Amino acid sequence: MTKEVKHKSDIEIAQEANMLRIEEIAAQLNIQEEDWEPYGRYKAKLSLGLFDKLKTKQEGKVVLVTSINPTPAGEGKSTVTVGLGQALNRIGEKAIIALREPSLGPSMGLKGGAAGGGYSQVIPMEDINLHFTGDIHAITTANNALAAVIDNHIHRGNELNIDPRKIVWKRVLDMNDRALRKIVIGLGGPVQGVPREDGFDITVASEVMAIFCLAKDLDDLKKKLSRMVVGYTYENKPVTVADLKVEGALTLLLKDAIRPNLVQTLENTPAIIHGGPFANIAHGCNSIIATKLASKLGDYVVTEAGFGADLGAEKFLNIKARYADLKPSAVVIVATARALKMHGGQNKNQLSTEDLQALAAGMANLEKHIETIQAFGVPFVVAVNRFVSDHDSEIQYILKWCSEKNIPVELSDVWLKGGEGGEDLARKVLDIIENGINEYQPLYTLDQPLEEKIITIAEKVYGASGVQFSPKALTQLQEFELQGWSTLPVCMAKTQYSLSDDPKRLGRPEEFVITIRELKASIGAGFIVALTGDVMTMPGLPKAPAALNMDVTEDGKAVGLF
Amino acid sequence: MTKEVKHKSDIEIAQEANMLRIEEIAAQLNIQEEDWEPYGRYKAKLSLGLFDKLKTKQEGKVVLVTSINPTPAGEGKSTVTVGLGQALNRIGEKAIIALREPSLGPSMGLKGGAAGGGYSQVIPMEDINLHFTGDIHAITTANNALAAVIDNHIHRGNELNIDPRKIVWKRVLDMNDRALRKIVIGLGGPVQGVPREDGFDITVASEVMAIFCLAKDLDDLKKKLSRMVVGYTYENKPVTVADLKVEGALTLLLKDAIRPNLVQTLENTPAIIHGGPFANIAHGCNSIIATKLASKLGDYVVTEAGFGADLGAEKFLNIKARYADLKPSAVVIVATARALKMHGGQNKNQLSTEDLQALAAGMANLEKHIETIQAFGVPFVVAVNRFVSDHDSEIQYILKWCSEKNIPVELSDVWLKGGEGGEDLARKVLDIIENGINEYQPLYTLDQPLEEKIITIAEKVYGASGVQFSPKALTQLQEFELQGWSTLPVCMAKTQYSLSDDPKRLGRPEEFVITIRELKASIGAGFIVALTGDVMTMPGLPKAPAALNMDVTEDGKAVGLF
Repeated sequence: MTKEVKHKSDIEIAQEANMLRIEEIAAQLNIQEEDWEPYGRYKAKLSLGLFDKLKTKQEGKVVLVTSINPTPAGEGKSTVTVGLGQALNRIGEKAIIALREPSLGPSMGLKGGAAGGGYSQVIPMEDINLHFTGDIHAITTANNALAAVIDNHIHRGNELNIDPRKIVWKRVLDMNDRALRKIVIGLGGPVQGVPREDGFDITVASEVMAIFCLAKDLDDLKKKLSRMVVGYTYENKPVTVADLKVEGALTLLLKDAIRPNLVQTLENTPAIIHGGPFANIAHGCNSIIATKLASKLGDYVVTEAGFGADLGAEKFLNIKARYADLKPSAVVIVATARALKMHGGQNKNQLSTEDLQALAAGMANLEKHIETIQAFGVPFVVAVNRFVSDHDSEIQYILKWCSEKNIPVELSDVWLKGGEGGEDLARKVLDIIENGINEYQPLYTLDQPLEEKIITIAEKVYGASGVQFSPKALTQLQEFELQGWSTLPVCMAKTQYSLSDDPKRLGRPEEFVITIRELKASIGAGFIVALTGDVMTMPGLPKAPAALNMDVTEDGKAVGLF
Repeated sequence: MTKEVKHKSDIEIAQEANMLRIEEIAAQLNIQEEDWEPYGRYKAKLSLGLFDKLKTKQEGKVVLVTSINPTPAGEGKSTVTVGLGQALNRIGEKAIIALREPSLGPSMGLKGGAAGGGYSQVIPMEDINLHFTGDIHAITTANNALAAVIDNHIHRGNELNIDPRKIVWKRVLDMNDRALRKIVIGLGGPVQGVPREDGFDITVASEVMAIFCLAKDLDDLKKKLSRMVVGYTYENKPVTVADLKVEGALTLLLKDAIRPNLVQTLENTPAIIHGGPFANIAHGCNSIIATKLASKLGDYVVTEAGFGADLGAEKFLNIKARYADLKPSAVVIVATARALKMHGGQNKNQLSTEDLQALAAGMANLEKHIETIQAFGVPFVVAVNRFVSDHDSEIQYILKWCSEKNIPVELSDVWLKGGEGGEDLARKVLDIIENGINEYQPLYTLDQPLEEKIITIAEKVYGASGVQFSPKALTQLQEFELQGWSTLPVCMAKTQYSLSDDPKRLGRPEEFVITIRELKASIGAGFIVALTGDVMTMPGLPKAPAALNMDVTEDGKAVGLF
C-alpha cells in the first residue's frame, strides 16, 4: 500500500514456499497411485482413466476468470485465478484451479511469468515457466514431424499432387524468433527438397495446440489430428493428415503430453495446468481435459481464459464451453486501477500517480466487458485486483462506480495476502452462483453463416459498427462454404490491447470497423480462424531480452527468471 | 538359430518386462532419496551433488563397446553393451551401463530403436525412444534461443558488428527434415529482421549437445557455452556467446537436462542414459557426467561410442577420455557375421544365406578396427554378436579366424538370451582387464598442429594413404592457428559406412585419400570439426517413413515403434 515497503519478487516468494510433495496433493484429491505419475517431487501427470472411475461423480461448478483489455501495466488475471482458488479452499470449499501452460518463447523476451504473482502463484514456478513436463515440446515435435512429412511427400514424387504454393501448414518453435516469420526452404538443388515459401509460428499458435486443448481423450485427439488440412492440391482439393497417414504417429508423439499436469499453489491448493494456446491468435483456454477432470475432482473449478473478455472469454463461451458441453456457473471480470487509468489516457510510466480523471475515463473499457458477459447470460462479479502501488481513492472509486450501477463487485487483495485476500471475492462468487440467474448461451448458433458469426462477435463483443471483409477473405468465405465448413464456430485473431483491431485505440473505442484480412481453416480443431489487423503468429524479441538477466547458481537454482 | 522360430519384436519383449520401480534401482545403488527425482515410475534424474558425496569412492573400471563399420544389417553394439552389463551383474560384479539418448528425428524415418534389442534392452524403451525426460528438447531450445538472440541483435542495431554472411550458428530440430537444410530467413521487409542464408541441423549435431556431453558440472557447462563462436564480425573477429551475454540463460534452460537419467535393463541392471551426439558429425559418446557418475556408483561401467571404431571409439579415446581424465580399462569390438559378409560383398538382401567366401573377404574390416584399438594400447576382445538367422559355420569361422591370430574373442548371444548369453564375454572382459597390458594413450598430442592431428587419424585409424585439404580448409587452418585454436583435438565428420570418406567403399579400402572439405570451430565443446565428403548434418526421411506405421492404442500403448 505504501511505496516504501520493499516487496519480495515472485521468484523469491515461490522459492521460499512450503511445498507439499505431489503425492500429498494427489491423496488430498483421492487419486490412487495407479492414476498419477510423478515428474520430480512436485509435479505429476494424471491418468485419463480417472474419467472412467469418476463417471458417476457430479461435475463441479466452473468459474471463469477474465478481465478488461490487458495493458503492459498488467491486470493480474492469473493471480486472481490462483488467489480465488486458494480463498475458496480457505472458506471450506473444495476448489481446484485449471490454468494454461506458459509458453517458453515469450519468457526469453519480456520479464514476467505466467504462473500468477505475489502470494497467489502456482509452484514450482521455475519448472512451470521453463520446460515443465515437456507438453509444449511434444506439440512442437508433432507439428514439425507433420511438416517434414509434407515436404518429404512432395520431394518423393508428390503422389497426392499437393501444390507447394498452397501449403498452409507451418513449422513451429516455442521461441520468439522474428527472423523465421517468412523464409524460403528446400534450397540447394534437387537433393534438398522442393523450394517453396514457408514460415514458422510460435508453438502455441499451432493447430496441434488447439486440438490438444479441445480433445476429449486420446481417440478424439487422433480423430481431430487426422482432419487437419495441411494444404491444397493443384485442383484445390484439401489435403489432410489422414491423406498423409500420420495421425497415428502424431498421436503417439502426444500420448504422454495429453495427460494433464497436477501441481499446487503457494497455499497447497491443487492446480491442473494443461495446454496453452494464445488467446489472440488461438482460442486461449487450457485443455478441456484439464477443466473437465478438475470439475470431476473438485466441487469448484477456477479457470481462466487468455487476455480480455473480448478474446479469451468470448472464445471460452462460444467455442470451448460448446465443445466441452460445459455450462459455466460464474464469470469473474478482473480490473485494476492501473490498467483502467491507462485506458483512460494516463501515461504508462506514471501509473503509480493518483489520477481519478483518467480512471473515470477508463471505466468505459470495463463497462463494455461487463455488457459482453451479460450478453452471454452468465452471473458475474467484478474483481478489483489491488496492486501495492494503488491509491485507496482509486480503489474506492471503482467499487462505488460498480455499486451505483448495481454491478456485483469485490476487492481482491490476493497478490499481497494470498487466499486470505480473496475470501470476500470467494463468498461473492458463491453468492452469485447460488442466487444469480444463469441463462448462459453462446452468442451465435452453428447454423449461422460464417460471415454472420463474425459480425455478431464484432458488434456484440467488440462494439464495432461493422465488419469489412478483404477480397481474399470474401473468396475464402465462398470456398469454405463449398467445403462444408461454414457450420464451424469462429476463432477471432485480434490484438489483445484494444476492443478494436487497432492496438492503439484504448478505452472503449466507438464507430470503428473490424477488417477481416484472411481466414484460416482449422478443421481439426473445429473452428475457422478470422485474422484481423496485423496479428503476429510469431513474436519477436525486444532490444534487451529478459534472457540477458537469466542465470542459474552452481547448485541449480534459477536466477533472474521473473 | 533356425529360421522357422518366430521371435517377438523388441517392443513386445520390452512391454512384457518385469520392471522394478525406479526407487528400487536407486536403492540398489545406495542413492538417497534427496539425490534422485522420479520422472514417471521407471525413470529418474540423478543429482550432480552425488559427485561430492562420492568424492572418496574409487572410480570403477570403464569398458568401451565399439564395433566394425555398421551396415544396414546392424551390428548390435547397444545390444551387446546392455547384454554385457547384464552379464557382469549375473556373474556377481556391480556393473552399470552408460548409453546415449536416442534422437527422435531418425525414429520417425527408419524403423529401429536405439535402446538395445531382443533380451538386452534398456526400458521403458518407448519412453527412451520418444521424448524420454526431455533433455534433447531442452538442448533444441537452448540452441534456438541463441539463434533468435543472434538475429535479434543484428535486427536491433548490430552493436557487435556481426557480418550476417558469416554466422556459423545454425538452428536445430530433432527431426529428419531435409527441406530445412538450406533456407533463407528474415524475409518480408524491415519488420521481420535481416535476410540471410541459414539452415537447420538435427539437434544431436548441435555444439550445445557436444558441450552437454563434455561438461563436468553446471559451472563448466556455462563456461563452455560462453565460449561458443556463433559467427564473425565484418573484421573477421569471432563473436561468442559471452559477447551476446546469454550464457546464463542457456545454462538455465539446461539446468535439469544436465542431470543424468537413471533407468534399468530388462534384467533390472541399472543404466544411465544421458546425452546423445551423433558419431559421424559429432563425437558420439554419452555425457562425461553419465560415465563418471556410473563409475562412482559401480565397479564397472559398460559404455558405448557411436558407429564403428573409426568414429566413435577414435573420438572416445582421443577426445572424451582425454577431457574426462579417464583411462578405459578394456574395449569390446562387436562384429556380426551378417555385417562382415556385407563388407565382403554379399548383397544386403541375402545376408541370411550362408556365404563363407564373403565372410572371409569381410574379415578385413574387423582386422583394421582391431589394429586401431591396438594402436591406442587398450586391452580388447572381439565380441561375435549372434543373430538368430546366423549359420553356425559362419560363427565358427570368425571365432577360429581370431583364435588363429591370438586375438581374444568370445561369442555374444545376448539378443536371444539376455545376460546369460553374455556371461562368457563378461568373464573374458574381466580377464583382459586383470591380465592384459594397458598402455592407453591418445594417438596425438594436443601441441601437434591441426593438420598433423587430422593426418594421424586418417592414416592410423582409417588406413588412408593421405589427406587432401580443400582450398577453403587450408585457409581455415591458417585462420584457426591465428586464433590460437590449434591446440584443440579434432572431431572428424565422416561417413560411418566406410573406413574411407566414400560410403560405398566397404571392407577395408586401400590406397585412398581423405578429403577435408571444411573445418568448423567448436570452441565451446573444445574441438575442431573436420568435415570430409558429404556428411549430412540434417538427415532426410525415406519414401515410406516409419511414422506411417506408428500408432497408439486407446489406453496409451505405443504401436509400431520398433
